[in-house]
Amino acid sequence: MHRNTHWLAVLAPMFLIGGTVGVATRAIAAGDDLQVRAQAAFKPIDRPAPNKAVRVELGRQLYHDPRLSRSGAISCASCHNLASGGVDNRETSLGHKAQVGGRNAPTTLNASVHLAQFWDGRAKDLTEQAKGPILNPGEMALPSEAEAVKIIRSVPGYQKAFKAAFPGSGVTYQNIAVAIADFEKTLVTPSRFDDYLRGRKDALSTAEKKGLKTFMDKGCVTCHSGVGVGGGMYMKFGMVAPYKHQADEGRFAITKDPADKFVFKVPSLRNVQKTYPYFHDGKVWSLDEAVAIMGKTQLGVDLSGEERASIVAFLKALDGDLPPQAMRIPELPVSGPDTPRPSL
Amino acid sequence: MHRNTHWLAVLAPMFLIGGTVGVATRAIAAGDDLQVRAQAAFKPIDRPAPNKAVRVELGRQLYHDPRLSRSGAISCASCHNLASGGVDNRETSLGHKAQVGGRNAPTTLNASVHLAQFWDGRAKDLTEQAKGPILNPGEMALPSEAEAVKIIRSVPGYQKAFKAAFPGSGVTYQNIAVAIADFEKTLVTPSRFDDYLRGRKDALSTAEKKGLKTFMDKGCVTCHSGVGVGGGMYMKFGMVAPYKHQADEGRFAITKDPADKFVFKVPSLRNVQKTYPYFHDGKVWSLDEAVAIMGKTQLGVDLSGEERASIVAFLKALDGDLPPQAMRIPELPVSGPDTPRPSL
Repeated sequence: MHRNTHWLAVLAPMFLIGGTVGVATRAIAAGDDLQVRAQAAFKPIDRPAPNKAVRVELGRQLYHDPRLSRSGAISCASCHNLASGGVDNRETSLGHKAQVGGRNAPTTLNASVHLAQFWDGRAKDLTEQAKGPILNPGEMALPSEAEAVKIIRSVPGYQKAFKAAFPGSGVTYQNIAVAIADFEKTLVTPSRFDDYLRGRKDALSTAEKKGLKTFMDKGCVTCHSGVGVGGGMYMKFGMVAPYKHQADEGRFAITKDPADKFVFKVPSLRNVQKTYPYFHDGKVWSLDEAVAIMGKTQLGVDLSGEERASIVAFLKALDGDLPPQAMRIPELPVSGPDTPRPSL
Repeated sequence: MHRNTHWLAVLAPMFLIGGTVGVATRAIAAGDDLQVRAQAAFKPIDRPAPNKAVRVELGRQLYHDPRLSRSGAISCASCHNLASGGVDNRETSLGHKAQVGGRNAPTTLNASVHLAQFWDGRAKDLTEQAKGPILNPGEMALPSEAEAVKIIRSVPGYQKAFKAAFPGSGVTYQNIAVAIADFEKTLVTPSRFDDYLRGRKDALSTAEKKGLKTFMDKGCVTCHSGVGVGGGMYMKFGMVAPYKHQADEGRFAITKDPADKFVFKVPSLRNVQKTYPYFHDGKVWSLDEAVAIMGKTQLGVDLSGEERASIVAFLKALDGDLPPQAMRIPELPVSGPDTPRPSL
């Protein structure tokens, strides 16, 4: 909503929603308040300083390189597609020989601000995360760290790039993961909501501000807060009422603590419009339905259609763009004579 | 080789190869001749004029959109990866449910200059080609043209883009293919060889010029000529001696003409260094071996190691870069509420 918009245009949607001038007036009066409350609950996201350029460039290649899979056909980007919000928009991903994955692929966008990685937080950071799917027999399915190193080391262009990026150590499995993580740390998507948090009151439309207010008033912000608008804590899915598809026991499988049954990392809501389908099982395709389920299972409330629509309007303001450099397809270095060939 | 290089540096490699000053002198004397001969046999490639921008942009999205597959996981770019020379560097590609394809995925780079599409030429142009894999049950496996149209039409962003790109007709299967083809027509990669053909004599090194001469003298140019350095005719694989992996009958399956047994489109050699493995069956991984096989099966000669290395040096000068716009990852428009979901 731009400052020079006529005040009637600003008020008109509120009349429709609030029904009376009084409601509209209160909503506007609450405007300053709302920003202060939002600034206390959330934190704007910053693009990282453009450093470690050699590692980032190398990581960008590795992120897109299907040679890190047994079939030579699956890269990180296959399931974490930068063309579609860092996800594959499937319930769960397809891995080696089209095996169906166990959980929905979370986005790599802004993942660096999460308290830990994977839905169950079993990897402490992006570097540890990157080491997982490459060796997972149901995903990229390389047989060992040694095989991954052998493949990458056999590519003359990578030999050279690793020497430049990791002068002491060259190609190691750790360094492959570090480079991928360094690239992923650049996948940050500032949004209009960040402009709002930084003080630009007109960065959100009236409808979006109303949605933000509903989001905070109803309690969504209890978990979806901080720089990620989520991603900062673990929470039981089904706090108040069980989730209708409840099956996956979440962090319990890692910690064996009964208190962790059905506990998952709270996902970041940045770019949530693009990262459908929703939840750890990817069983819910509509954002409206996802919001309804959250209300019921986490807050014990039946959000009205209007409340849900308002929250969704706010959530769409969390869309952001990747930096242009991250949206470039890398040119992959050609294989060498000893590069292991794809297999099934 | 730059003009200001000392003449001894130019001659030295020739001494090693030719063994006598006489041979080196003849090679240099033949230099001008070689360019004239090359200009008669080949044609430089031009980047297309930047027109039809709306269709090209739309085609770039569709080329990368996995929603054009039944699983929602395979796009044109999966097998024709712009990060790796427009191919997937697999013997044959993996399609729906990891089915193994029948022939090696040919590159989309410079494909617009080919006389026809597919290894057997069964599609007359890129538009007809694009219609194939989407519906092929072993590839992207959509059940029908109608389903492809339903998917694309259900995406609000595509509705709008098709209206702009095809004002009369909007989303049709034909228009999906036309947009993809219009994007593919921009995948043109001028190389140093084109600079040479345009008159810049120092665009190729002495070794590369020697390789070009061998390529022409030995007869490779008989089939690998014109703007594509191939792609302009059909030829029997095994003219003089049978190919050791001979099995696929090529164009015979299309024409039923016994003269077409084992006949394939001669592939373009542009970017051949990146488009391994080689031949319609992808059974040969080394360019040196591919050149040796060509000598034996098509020309009836046993090329020496030195001759093969020289030809390979020339072939590497056919590498070119895609325009920066084609190397951008598109942002795909989000699905609508009625977009059909991926299945297996």
